[in-house]
Amino acid sequence: MKELNQPISGDDLARFSGPTTFMRLPLAHALDGLDVAIVGVPMDIGTSWRSGARFAPKEIRNQSAAIRPYNLTTGDAPFEVHNIADIGDLAINTYSLPDTLRIVEESFDAILTGSDVVPVALGGDQSITLPILRAMARKHGPMAVVHVDARSDSSDETFGERNTSGTVFRRAQDEGLVDSEKVYQIGLRGTGETPSELKTPQSWGFQHFLASELWNRSMAGLGTEIRRDIGGRPVYLSFDISALDPGFAPGTGAPEIGGLTSMQALELVRALKGVNLVGCDMVEVAPAYDPTGTTSLVAAHLVYEMLCMLPQRSETVE
Amino acid sequence: MKELNQPISGDDLARFSGPTTFMRLPLAHALDGLDVAIVGVPMDIGTSWRSGARFAPKEIRNQSAAIRPYNLTTGDAPFEVHNIADIGDLAINTYSLPDTLRIVEESFDAILTGSDVVPVALGGDQSITLPILRAMARKHGPMAVVHVDARSDSSDETFGERNTSGTVFRRAQDEGLVDSEKVYQIGLRGTGETPSELKTPQSWGFQHFLASELWNRSMAGLGTEIRRDIGGRPVYLSFDISALDPGFAPGTGAPEIGGLTSMQALELVRALKGVNLVGCDMVEVAPAYDPTGTTSLVAAHLVYEMLCMLPQRSETVE
Amino acid sequence: MKELNQPISGDDLARFSGPTTFMRLPLAHALDGLDVAIVGVPMDIGTSWRSGARFAPKEIRNQSAAIRPYNLTTGDAPFEVHNIADIGDLAINTYSLPDTLRIVEESFDAILTGSDVVPVALGGDQSITLPILRAMARKHGPMAVVHVDARSDSSDETFGERNTSGTVFRRAQDEGLVDSEKVYQIGLRGTGETPSELKTPQSWGFQHFLASELWNRSMAGLGTEIRRDIGGRPVYLSFDISALDPGFAPGTGAPEIGGLTSMQALELVRALKGVNLVGCDMVEVAPAYDPTGTTSLVAAHLVYEMLCMLPQRSETVE
Amino acid sequence: MKELNQPISGDDLARFSGPTTFMRLPLAHALDGLDVAIVGVPMDIGTSWRSGARFAPKEIRNQSAAIRPYNLTTGDAPFEVHNIADIGDLAINTYSLPDTLRIVEESFDAILTGSDVVPVALGGDQSITLPILRAMARKHGPMAVVHVDARSDSSDETFGERNTSGTVFRRAQDEGLVDSEKVYQIGLRGTGETPSELKTPQSWGFQHFLASELWNRSMAGLGTEIRRDIGGRPVYLSFDISALDPGFAPGTGAPEIGGLTSMQALELVRALKGVNLVGCDMVEVAPAYDPTGTTSLVAAHLVYEMLCMLPQRSETVE
Amino acid sequence: MKELNQPISGDDLARFSGPTTFMRLPLAHALDGLDVAIVGVPMDIGTSWRSGARFAPKEIRNQSAAIRPYNLTTGDAPFEVHNIADIGDLAINTYSLPDTLRIVEESFDAILTGSDVVPVALGGDQSITLPILRAMARKHGPMAVVHVDARSDSSDETFGERNTSGTVFRRAQDEGLVDSEKVYQIGLRGTGETPSELKTPQSWGFQHFLASELWNRSMAGLGTEIRRDIGGRPVYLSFDISALDPGFAPGTGAPEIGGLTSMQALELVRALKGVNLVGCDMVEVAPAYDPTGTTSLVAAHLVYEMLCMLPQRSETVE
Amino acid sequence: MKELNQPISGDDLARFSGPTTFMRLPLAHALDGLDVAIVGVPMDIGTSWRSGARFAPKEIRNQSAAIRPYNLTTGDAPFEVHNIADIGDLAINTYSLPDTLRIVEESFDAILTGSDVVPVALGGDQSITLPILRAMARKHGPMAVVHVDARSDSSDETFGERNTSGTVFRRAQDEGLVDSEKVYQIGLRGTGETPSELKTPQSWGFQHFLASELWNRSMAGLGTEIRRDIGGRPVYLSFDISALDPGFAPGTGAPEIGGLTSMQALELVRALKGVNLVGCDMVEVAPAYDPTGTTSLVAAHLVYEMLCMLPQRSETVE
Repeated sequence: MKELNQPISGDDLARFSGPTTFMRLPLAHALDGLDVAIVGVPMDIGTSWRSGARFAPKEIRNQSAAIRPYNLTTGDAPFEVHNIADIGDLAINTYSLPDTLRIVEESFDAILTGSDVVPVALGGDQSITLPILRAMARKHGPMAVVHVDARSDSSDETFGERNTSGTVFRRAQDEGLVDSEKVYQIGLRGTGETPSELKTPQSWGFQHFLASELWNRSMAGLGTEIRRDIGGRPVYLSFDISALDPGFAPGTGAPEIGGLTSMQALELVRALKGVNLVGCDMVEVAPAYDPTGTTSLVAAHLVYEMLCMLPQRSETVE
Repeated sequence: MKELNQPISGDDLARFSGPTTFMRLPLAHALDGLDVAIVGVPMDIGTSWRSGARFAPKEIRNQSAAIRPYNLTTGDAPFEVHNIADIGDLAINTYSLPDTLRIVEESFDAILTGSDVVPVALGGDQSITLPILRAMARKHGPMAVVHVDARSDSSDETFGERNTSGTVFRRAQDEGLVDSEKVYQIGLRGTGETPSELKTPQSWGFQHFLASELWNRSMAGLGTEIRRDIGGRPVYLSFDISALDPGFAPGTGAPEIGGLTSMQALELVRALKGVNLVGCDMVEVAPAYDPTGTTSLVAAHLVYEMLCMLPQRSETVE
Repeated sequence: MKELNQPISGDDLARFSGPTTFMRLPLAHALDGLDVAIVGVPMDIGTSWRSGARFAPKEIRNQSAAIRPYNLTTGDAPFEVHNIADIGDLAINTYSLPDTLRIVEESFDAILTGSDVVPVALGGDQSITLPILRAMARKHGPMAVVHVDARSDSSDETFGERNTSGTVFRRAQDEGLVDSEKVYQIGLRGTGETPSELKTPQSWGFQHFLASELWNRSMAGLGTEIRRDIGGRPVYLSFDISALDPGFAPGTGAPEIGGLTSMQALELVRALKGVNLVGCDMVEVAPAYDPTGTTSLVAAHLVYEMLCMLPQRSETVE
Repeated sequence: MKELNQPISGDDLARFSGPTTFMRLPLAHALDGLDVAIVGVPMDIGTSWRSGARFAPKEIRNQSAAIRPYNLTTGDAPFEVHNIADIGDLAINTYSLPDTLRIVEESFDAILTGSDVVPVALGGDQSITLPILRAMARKHGPMAVVHVDARSDSSDETFGERNTSGTVFRRAQDEGLVDSEKVYQIGLRGTGETPSELKTPQSWGFQHFLASELWNRSMAGLGTEIRRDIGGRPVYLSFDISALDPGFAPGTGAPEIGGLTSMQALELVRALKGVNLVGCDMVEVAPAYDPTGTTSLVAAHLVYEMLCMLPQRSETVE
Repeated sequence: MKELNQPISGDDLARFSGPTTFMRLPLAHALDGLDVAIVGVPMDIGTSWRSGARFAPKEIRNQSAAIRPYNLTTGDAPFEVHNIADIGDLAINTYSLPDTLRIVEESFDAILTGSDVVPVALGGDQSITLPILRAMARKHGPMAVVHVDARSDSSDETFGERNTSGTVFRRAQDEGLVDSEKVYQIGLRGTGETPSELKTPQSWGFQHFLASELWNRSMAGLGTEIRRDIGGRPVYLSFDISALDPGFAPGTGAPEIGGLTSMQALELVRALKGVNLVGCDMVEVAPAYDPTGTTSLVAAHLVYEMLCMLPQRSETVE
Repeated sequence: MKELNQPISGDDLARFSGPTTFMRLPLAHALDGLDVAIVGVPMDIGTSWRSGARFAPKEIRNQSAAIRPYNLTTGDAPFEVHNIADIGDLAINTYSLPDTLRIVEESFDAILTGSDVVPVALGGDQSITLPILRAMARKHGPMAVVHVDARSDSSDETFGERNTSGTVFRRAQDEGLVDSEKVYQIGLRGTGETPSELKTPQSWGFQHFLASELWNRSMAGLGTEIRRDIGGRPVYLSFDISALDPGFAPGTGAPEIGGLTSMQALELVRALKGVNLVGCDMVEVAPAYDPTGTTSLVAAHLVYEMLCMLPQRSETVE
């Protein structure tokens, strides 16, 4: 049985010390032997309102130092069943969105080729999801996608640009990266330039769950339903932190009121446990608008819960 | 058919650009042809705890630049049915509460005389509501009032002053500006100098809905009930942002814990759609205590929802 | 009938003025005639993540100036039935946790000996609760304890230290300070170094109420149930503000997502009214992480609600 | 020899504890035996830009807890030669500038009549200086005034109001409260509605020292010169914290760049030691714009330096 | 004589009201009759460290509302001699640096062709200066440039990009836009990837004035010297706010310690009065890192001082 | 010639990416081949006012990512002449000051025994300096010390504790760790509990340079003088960031107005180049009070300057 990477314990080193890898895991320079690779993608120029997500990977990791390995609520112990490492940040081109998207796509191709690692991306803005989906689809074919977000991100273009944080899912649909009947967009709300912002993706088959339909309710049931609907398909989970209400996550690029609560986000991710998760991301945290660190903390904890929801690999158990 | 004012689109001009009118609407210098006029009243010296609401009209407008014209949740499209403009701020006397209240009253008289515009006031503290009600009542007679607030604002006087943010509804009742059986005070909670702070307005016939009765519940039902109870009467909606819990709206003059959620506020305003709204205000946002901008954003979005709840005018439809 | 201390009224002195005692009550230098004594314990070196609770007594008192004497929701009027004073802060040794714990224990012994005052402690971090429980148990024997917190604080030691914020309830159990079948830990969640962090205290008989079991629910029922289960036993209430979700209380030493809401906290404390409360504390507020003051305000209001839940003393009524 | 009030020592009680009187001095309820009385005047509605100075007395006192009794630079020991107490805040009318100015004037009349106490006022905005000067002049006749400020505050009226923070010195001149040849306005800069903002007070004889003339220079020489020019006349010192550059004191109602440094402020106050100071004030600190507390700290320390510059009273020495 | 645009007076409308144009000047939709046009360029994706300058035009304008028309220190009255308007923001493409630079260049070509207006640009990051210089040089030929900055911005490329905030002056030199013997880079300091960061521009003839040579000194002399050295040449002034020390201007994309003071910046700009200024910019303000607004205020005031230094046009005087 | 560690270049990896070691240097797990070891000591319970320095090593390293290898002002290139690594943080006991001081002393003994590495400590509060001095003195004998600070830290005890941030230099003197004629305390100011706070260390021979003597002056001369006075003696440099004025460094445990400027700090450190520096520290940065990051940036840059002032080792040059 191989030895699994473990976070540094708070009993060995005070939590405000140590490397700022995710949960103070080892920093890996190669993928050998890894089940899961956490990777930062600090790109923020695909956003239309408040920039600053370039600092999100760093702050999510900073806040993650307070998370311990055992999930007291669910009983999960992800570091006992998976070999997880932080592989640092991609060397993006901070001045060019197209060039960065190319770098992300090539980097994910490299990660996915010749390894079965599950990549967990720390954005960055939502624009990074498209090149990730491209690389993922080359390996897995059209995937089911759970997209938690305030917005459907299905515009055609803005200022003539076709690859921004607002166009990800139209491109993904057009390019056949997703199984359009199995795309779940959860937390949608707010306002649009045209009434078609929801209708268009619905016409593709995307399933929409408006935040307003979920208020004052547990999301465990919805999560379970989606898990069953997905079955054994490969699934990608993309979590835009603006899905949460700004009361719970103010530090984001385009906050929208009336969102999900942190509790609902936990319920959803936990209920999805058991799906065939092949990759996931956490995007749109903007630390400059998060003076208490709460948003980065929520994001870090949700990434931890994603680690808990990963399917158990046969080779990692005895 | 007249052409209706439209907000500047985010596809034409980046959202961090453009005029800081509400939602980047045209700034109107006259009321001709308008159905709705948004007006700032940056008065903050009627407050007893944290001052600073004088900057609220500016910050609510700043945050409103992120709102798009179509309401994706409700399907409303207010700019397709109403002609709406921002008419700027009243030229108040920032050193004198009585003089400012006089200016507000005269300005609203001027607005309401010879036009059927619905005024939407951006406070400022709650003290601005009294002169507005006076002007409104001269036109509409005693009105139904939906007052969303942590407090009943029905004191008789403080420090010998009879017109402050805390005395508005006693004066309104005394002066016959409101239909006292049709005054709904929603979100009440907290503490009082005397136990009479709720009992007195109840003795006038005001209907009280304590926040604690509404916790963990949808407010759609209550909104519907109130809408039916009001029937076709002219209604004024006054929204003190302190009605919300400080978890959702910390930036206010006198925060009070245990309040409404943003979701409940949306439910309430949406459920009231269809009443004969003749005017409304959003008061008590204090930007200096709102480092992430969340409170101004909530306020801006609720004002947008008020635009969505406005009754359709016959002359603006085809 | 003795005359009871009253907070300074906002009608007599503007709320931003006056002494920064709790609710602007008199500062008492002796316990004679008091039913309740509010005491600050500004110790923050027992915390493992974000320090700064040393400023909590000052900020909780600052925010408490906005609270009025009558509880409009419950009808309680604590200052009409109890004689309450602020007795200032203990003269702790800010450089030494063991020495401060000794000072706290001796000070509480002194408070409890020869008076029947109910002490209400404003922490400081959770480590202050152990010496308080020691002094309380000397007077009352093993007590029922309602412990509202994100964590069970039942570790054996950290860095070789046996008395920190994380070990309080193991020490209390070991020393027989608590009635272990009547210890209620409410709001638990998050992650642990080992899976035993909940199982160990459960093995002692502690009753656990995970936050996730309480989401989207009123806590009034749970509070009532606990109140009945406790019966007439002497009860100590320890409230670690991290029990609340960081959306409602970001300013704490170790925030944990998915916590209680402010509304639930109010429901719980109010439902406990009638128990034989012999002491209580409010701990782990960290003002440096609370830019809007919301956390201190929540803490101040919950302390006020504790005053409302105090059992009526026969000698104070007529 | 009478016993003099002493601040609580940091060796006796941790500095984050204790009363929030100035430097943790005793709170006096009467003036008997006092040489100096520190009094808060938390009025902020006379300001034209950012409000919030109502919280200044509280925050200046909070920051003053870090100041120790001996002046290590100058050797002064004010608590060995003067009997100093904090007498709390005046009970102002927070809704009315005219009524508050009346209260201030009457309160200072009461303070000055029948005692020889030197009042040290913690504002509040600059508007409080006029009623203080009126009361002072009734006792001392026309005084020399050292006015450290970014602006001359010599407008005639604004919005029809004749008593605001911007009109203090015109009123003082018109009413004969000051010895116009001995009024020193120091730190002036910035912009004006008309070019006369400096020329008018110069025409009365006021002596102007523009900030730009003082840049990169010690102010010790200027202070000495002014001290000599004043001679034995009674002097009032009014210090508007906006005199300092916002790099040193950002938390003020109307910051103006290019101001004095903290070092220059210290030099000036120290150089004035020996004048016949009969009263002084520190105004225009706005804590809501001071996230690090620096501005309140600067203000607190400058007030301490004013205590150091007080002339020694014959009756307090042996 | 034509009538000149005037800022709205604070005596007519409270300063927290009114349009958020620069100094509340009229918003002009055409250049006819203008001498000076203030234009926002909210582009921030050319920066390598902290993003957020996209909000700078808005915040600089917000802070500019506190500036009055007359310069009390210098006696200048720019609105009596120039016709100045704010012409709003350019409609940039926020997702693409190359496309935005193209838009800026074309927009400035349009501004400069057929008008003699002096453009004053509010950035945005420093990358906007290159397209402005291109347009300016087409009209004026190679210009003298006063570049106040912490860095020389003369890299060749970064991440393969040749047009970023760090390459502006190499491109300008290569393209012959500047008179290389008359380029003054002032405030340089800090660290570089290679030692050539200063030597290379020096080899082109650029004149360097390191911040460390200017510490503790007036910059009036240097400004005068530069003014004489420039003579009658057309001059462009580019002011990167990071030239200032972060003690005076923390809210910038890449703060560097040991910079100029606000006082020195004022001295420099004032000493340059009389040069043939044909355009200028203020760049790199990052409001998200400026919680007190000080940096935007400094920037706004320096822009005002640039208006004061403009040469008097013969046609605007009588 | 051995290959020297280099910081990651900003041309290879965006500065907001990469490890949070100092300047993104390699993290070393052994001292072999190192000339300089940067080590974090995140202890903050030895401070008497604002805690939080435990997060300083992390934030200083975060800010250091913006520093490039070449010193453009001085021409120094420390990474071309020294082999420098970050060795992470010491595993302190965050609950116990005495135990942590023991850990620091033993760790520094281990570092210094069998290597000639120069340790550069990132505090933490000033209390860490005493155990470092003990270890240093065992190797080097009594050292010259340059102590830049607002306070002399020469108290005998506080609350009965003899080893806190306030007693370091009395202990060092008593234990013979320092060459008392060659101890330079620079930046002293403020207030004391007794007048002896400066006189006592002066009586030991310590040389005092009050901040007030240095205002408005270059510190290059003083630095040069001290360098000469020290000659070839081994020197320890301890830099408490509170030496700086809070205008330049607000984020510290006990800010004191009237301090040094950042420029003076740079002048001093640069002028000391050439002394036989055997170790140094940067202490008392408190990130929770530093919303713009300026204080951590100043600290990071000063540590970089200390690297520049290190004497060249014969073995590292060719």
